[in-house]
Amino acid sequence: MKYLITISALIAACAVSVQAKIVTQSIEYKQGDTTLEGYLAYDDAVSSKRPGVLIVHQWLGLTDYEKHRAEQLAALGYVAFCADIYGKGVRPKNVSEAGAEATKYKSDRQLLRARVNAGLDELKKNELVDTKHIAAIGYCFGGTTVIELALSGADIAGVVSFHGGLDAPNPADAKNIKCKVLALAGADDPFQNPNDLSAFESEMRDAKVDWQITFYGGAVHSFTQPDPGFVNPGAHYNEKADKRSWQAMKDFFAEIFR
Amino acid sequence: MKYLITISALIAACAVSVQAKIVTQSIEYKQGDTTLEGYLAYDDAVSSKRPGVLIVHQWLGLTDYEKHRAEQLAALGYVAFCADIYGKGVRPKNVSEAGAEATKYKSDRQLLRARVNAGLDELKKNELVDTKHIAAIGYCFGGTTVIELALSGADIAGVVSFHGGLDAPNPADAKNIKCKVLALAGADDPFQNPNDLSAFESEMRDAKVDWQITFYGGAVHSFTQPDPGFVNPGAHYNEKADKRSWQAMKDFFAEIFR
Repeated sequence: MKYLITISALIAACAVSVQAKIVTQSIEYKQGDTTLEGYLAYDDAVSSKRPGVLIVHQWLGLTDYEKHRAEQLAALGYVAFCADIYGKGVRPKNVSEAGAEATKYKSDRQLLRARVNAGLDELKKNELVDTKHIAAIGYCFGGTTVIELALSGADIAGVVSFHGGLDAPNPADAKNIKCKVLALAGADDPFQNPNDLSAFESEMRDAKVDWQITFYGGAVHSFTQPDPGFVNPGAHYNEKADKRSWQAMKDFFAEIFR
Repeated sequence: MKYLITISALIAACAVSVQAKIVTQSIEYKQGDTTLEGYLAYDDAVSSKRPGVLIVHQWLGLTDYEKHRAEQLAALGYVAFCADIYGKGVRPKNVSEAGAEATKYKSDRQLLRARVNAGLDELKKNELVDTKHIAAIGYCFGGTTVIELALSGADIAGVVSFHGGLDAPNPADAKNIKCKVLALAGADDPFQNPNDLSAFESEMRDAKVDWQITFYGGAVHSFTQPDPGFVNPGAHYNEKADKRSWQAMKDFFAEIFR
């Protein structure tokens, strides 16, 4: 192991003496006739192309939670774009509305795929994005959605599902998967159906997908969300699992964005 | 995010222009009346105390494989010590001998715990080791053994089991566990009994252990070993899973050695 640091490396290090500035912006785009409203974040202090990360929201729709994740990803050097699956202005105010919206898309996977691909297309259009290095991450409903994005055959590098439902109504579509799949789950998530989990694993295995899954002990549903938006003993924040899963995502990106 | 690098930081960086020198050494030690022969590795270019990592061998006993891992860990800045569970000179030459030796300890967990704790004590004696920051890692049989070390109530920071058998004949002992537990497993490991896996999870859950498990898709048994020492379709090297699990271990160390 060599710690030697050369003068040229030091000069190069000095050259990046810049102050990052995270720029954010709401962006309207369309899927079919439906207007959607996403949220973009990137570091304005860098002008070169960089990997892009699509973020898919949980069942409450696009909230400040996902926007904050986009800003965190921008600070890591990525162009981050929060997709809007539900449509402009469709922002459920309670669990009843959230359940109705989520069910609409979970029971129509083709529509769900169309919506998430529209978000991906919007991200790809951004001139700062290196389109050969794109990933998608999602939380809860969004964790299910990024798996559907993979199943749709999206030509991206990888997807990360955080406490996403892993039910797979169309397992044969796994043959379409071109990207790597990372699932990060609470070991004690009561919303994760064991049969769905086992079907997901078989689906990945049978199609020879490059997949991984981590279970965090003591973590239930919504373990990355300080405020999951509803009170339920089966869904709450777990700081350790949040930090560990974020690190797992960063390692995954380091691998797939090489 | 601030990229600003100050002149003082650059000077500090220059000050660590040193060439690491990994020192290795075979060490005899005892458990009861039995002489054991372990293997130590550390970086001689550093004089300060640092975390210690105990390494427990697979069923073939202490081989060049574990010694190489010790050197890798020394290069990462740890004092690494390969325990010898079987005894000095007991180095199985084939799977039949390996099976007999492993079975001797797997069927006598108290003896196994005594042997691995003897290795831990030897590591702790090393004056370069910061005894508040110790972890144990193990491969296959050694992966089972580090879980037994945790079950024995060892006062260490964490254990990492790489493709270890997770059978737990004494689940009630999980209440003794003081350290964090990370298990890294092949999703397609035919040597991992699903009932053992499920019992392990229950054991960790019931005792409220801080535990995690990752399954690597496409990986079978021995996925970290370029030469597992026997030919079996259920046990072979998987470069991706090897690299990913090594990174997971590094992240775990970064967390527990804070």
